[in-house]
Amino acid sequence: MFPQRVTLVDVGPRDGLQNEKQAVSAAHKVELVHRLQAAGLREIEVTSFVSPKWVPQMADNAEVMAGVQRQPGVRYSVLVPNMKGLEAALPTRPDEIVVFGAASEAFSQRNINCSIEESIERFRPVVEAARAQGIKVRGAVSCALGCPYQGEVSPDEVERVVRLMKDIGVQHVGIADTIGVGTPRRVQAVMERALKHYPIAEVSGHFHDTYGQAIGNVYACLEMGIHTFDASVAGLGGCPYAKGATGNVATEDVVFLLHGLGIETGIDLDRLVDAGKFISDVLGRKPVSRVANAVLSRRGAA
Amino acid sequence: MFPQRVTLVDVGPRDGLQNEKQAVSAAHKVELVHRLQAAGLREIEVTSFVSPKWVPQMADNAEVMAGVQRQPGVRYSVLVPNMKGLEAALPTRPDEIVVFGAASEAFSQRNINCSIEESIERFRPVVEAARAQGIKVRGAVSCALGCPYQGEVSPDEVERVVRLMKDIGVQHVGIADTIGVGTPRRVQAVMERALKHYPIAEVSGHFHDTYGQAIGNVYACLEMGIHTFDASVAGLGGCPYAKGATGNVATEDVVFLLHGLGIETGIDLDRLVDAGKFISDVLGRKPVSRVANAVLSRRGAA
Repeated sequence: MFPQRVTLVDVGPRDGLQNEKQAVSAAHKVELVHRLQAAGLREIEVTSFVSPKWVPQMADNAEVMAGVQRQPGVRYSVLVPNMKGLEAALPTRPDEIVVFGAASEAFSQRNINCSIEESIERFRPVVEAARAQGIKVRGAVSCALGCPYQGEVSPDEVERVVRLMKDIGVQHVGIADTIGVGTPRRVQAVMERALKHYPIAEVSGHFHDTYGQAIGNVYACLEMGIHTFDASVAGLGGCPYAKGATGNVATEDVVFLLHGLGIETGIDLDRLVDAGKFISDVLGRKPVSRVANAVLSRRGAA
Repeated sequence: MFPQRVTLVDVGPRDGLQNEKQAVSAAHKVELVHRLQAAGLREIEVTSFVSPKWVPQMADNAEVMAGVQRQPGVRYSVLVPNMKGLEAALPTRPDEIVVFGAASEAFSQRNINCSIEESIERFRPVVEAARAQGIKVRGAVSCALGCPYQGEVSPDEVERVVRLMKDIGVQHVGIADTIGVGTPRRVQAVMERALKHYPIAEVSGHFHDTYGQAIGNVYACLEMGIHTFDASVAGLGGCPYAKGATGNVATEDVVFLLHGLGIETGIDLDRLVDAGKFISDVLGRKPVSRVANAVLSRRGAA
């Protein structure tokens, strides 16, 4: 039942750094990507092509993409919010683009000022144009386990967005617990809905550790055979909905779980901890990863 | 398969505060116990009757026990290392005593200067004397998933201590991942060994979150029907083997998991967060609980 091998997508350079208060230079971002691929990551969410008016942290997107010395076998993805973003992204040759929608109507209205259905429909030409260029399209479903505005989000609501994404040609669906309130059985119920529409290789979990549940939720997904997860090195990102609280689950912590279960990742945990330490030093703080802090403490004592 | 109800033993006042650098007054300890029972905890490890030469933090043990206004239905336990400790503990009327042994020979030699077998054998008259007074005896098996000195610890080694404890009349066995390196399948393998010798109501899990795995490990135990766990409010205690790393799993985080799974605990999470905030304020730091920090952040924003 458990997968033999799991693919981790490190979203630290994009989803992580976008939600850090402190600005990070393009050179440091490139260095982070290099360290992640050297540690064995084979999928990296590098940057986003959102308007710099809204997300100034990612204004250096083209510079970062150009700076990365690509390794064969590594997939570099970028987030695009619309056709304008795709057009800006295309010359940088991403292997994959990420589009997004919320499972919560309240979140969609508050965050992108339109209904869920409209938001997905707007991505239709973006998906078509990307696929015409041979670029894979991943869809991120936010608020799949709960919403900061409406609270409860039902599995039915999640399934609705998954179906809409399928309908416009999205090839992979990532189920995201944006506020970290999910617990294992509820996560499994939501994942079952996604698996009704996508094969298991094209369904991934994106968990936040805001309430300390991410590792339990990854484990519950593994029991279902799900074998792709997002994670963020050093827990980069924090939680935009609760200041001072934890956001993205740390890649280091997920790797420790997987290796403990005898599941292959291709990742060298020590080098991953180094990558997280590097970017945490740039940010002037400790990694938000229990594994990283334990490993660094042990190294200090040795 | 999942239990309908789970009992949490809050070990914060003893195991937690014993491993905090900063001294806490007896009055604050008593207040913490009061707040824990007001939050719905029905088992509390209050203090230890170890020599104040070794554990000065617990020198106020009798004062703390005398200060607690007991609630019917709550079980108050104390750690005792030997007959002298039991004799000091008896006048304070504990409901339960905790004795201990390591699954790792290296740990036993380094920490208590004798073999595992000798260490358990020394508890035989203590267990007899306690049971003769109608006091329940719980045994804590440390290093059940790994040892800071010898590294790997096999399920065979754990089963050996469990059998020795059973042999001297210990009534409940707590399987402790002292350094937090356990992951779910290994935890299940170890728990199976304990369940060969004790009924499921008398086997508990004590997990440390040093590598972020505690919630996954609790979940894996729940799948086996195990329904008693130790936890420490606000994650009190830290990790004595890795400075700055996390120790005991926070009670708040376990309660969030259980309630999310629809499992009853009798605990009011908001009051528990208050209890953790109280003692964290005394210690002058933030709670080491993701749930506590998220809840406190949300409250601050509201």
